[in-house]
Amino acid sequence: MTATIRILGLDPGLRVTGYGVIEKNGSTLTYVSSGCVKSPDGELPDRLKNILNSVQEVISRHTPQEVAVEKVFVNVNPQSTLLLGQARGAAICAAVSRDLPVAEYTALQVKQAVVGNGHAKKEQVQEMVKRLLKLPGYPSPDAADALACAICHAHGGELAGVTTRGYRVKGGRLVK
Amino acid sequence: MTATIRILGLDPGLRVTGYGVIEKNGSTLTYVSSGCVKSPDGELPDRLKNILNSVQEVISRHTPQEVAVEKVFVNVNPQSTLLLGQARGAAICAAVSRDLPVAEYTALQVKQAVVGNGHAKKEQVQEMVKRLLKLPGYPSPDAADALACAICHAHGGELAGVTTRGYRVKGGRLVK
Repeated sequence: MTATIRILGLDPGLRVTGYGVIEKNGSTLTYVSSGCVKSPDGELPDRLKNILNSVQEVISRHTPQEVAVEKVFVNVNPQSTLLLGQARGAAICAAVSRDLPVAEYTALQVKQAVVGNGHAKKEQVQEMVKRLLKLPGYPSPDAADALACAICHAHGGELAGVTTRGYRVKGGRLVK
Repeated sequence: MTATIRILGLDPGLRVTGYGVIEKNGSTLTYVSSGCVKSPDGELPDRLKNILNSVQEVISRHTPQEVAVEKVFVNVNPQSTLLLGQARGAAICAAVSRDLPVAEYTALQVKQAVVGNGHAKKEQVQEMVKRLLKLPGYPSPDAADALACAICHAHGGELAGVTTRGYRVKGGRLVK
């Protein structure tokens, strides 16, 4: 019997932080939960506190063992980049404050792992997340990105070496 | 008798986060402690965890009631700005995780409050921090900036209205 690992995927943002929890058992992935944490307008410290507390709540409720965070896109506007960085810092702090290991993946890595194409569109990511986790409907875009990040982490170990050896992912499976 | 308020000033950075603790009693400021938290090279989540835990330790040791954080300079390099934002997010999370109120001040506000000139040089800030807190020697630059931020917060209430009414700060005191 293989051990089950519970993974929390996070897609951080200052307004909305998407989260998705999945379980990995061997090559089987099972959906556990997903949603998003919204931080209302207000002073920055209050918004960061909201992200920190809300992600800690998600961790308490779903008890993941590992966390995967999407590397955020660097915005053209430096002020937005700084704000996004602070939000991401708060989301990561929620995980490390619970002593969980945190892995980081670029959007390219996530799309490559889930769709098999690093430049896939948002709709393709949603479609593949729905298929891979056998969901009855489409997850919201924020939750889909977080779930995709968790899936990328679940596939991580195998894919990291394999994709450089001529394999690629197609339809969520490895092909030559 | 006036109540004593203990203020923690923070100057966040990914490599070095300066901190300074002072006490305010009426118009009297007293130095309590200062120093800096260093986060060694390594994976970003580990570095953020180090900032979070170290600033929480400073808070546990010196029990400030209020926190003042310097608004960081937006770097020309977006990747550096993002990293700095994440470090600052971790420092602020340390404060809000202990339910402390956090105020933010720009470097201009801090220099204006401490030196009386928003464009003062680093050495002038160090000199005024030394004088205002009656220190026997110069604090390190990181600690000086954090102490200056705490002093700015201590002066905050009075100065905010006054400086716009034709007063300015000279030698640490208000003059017409």
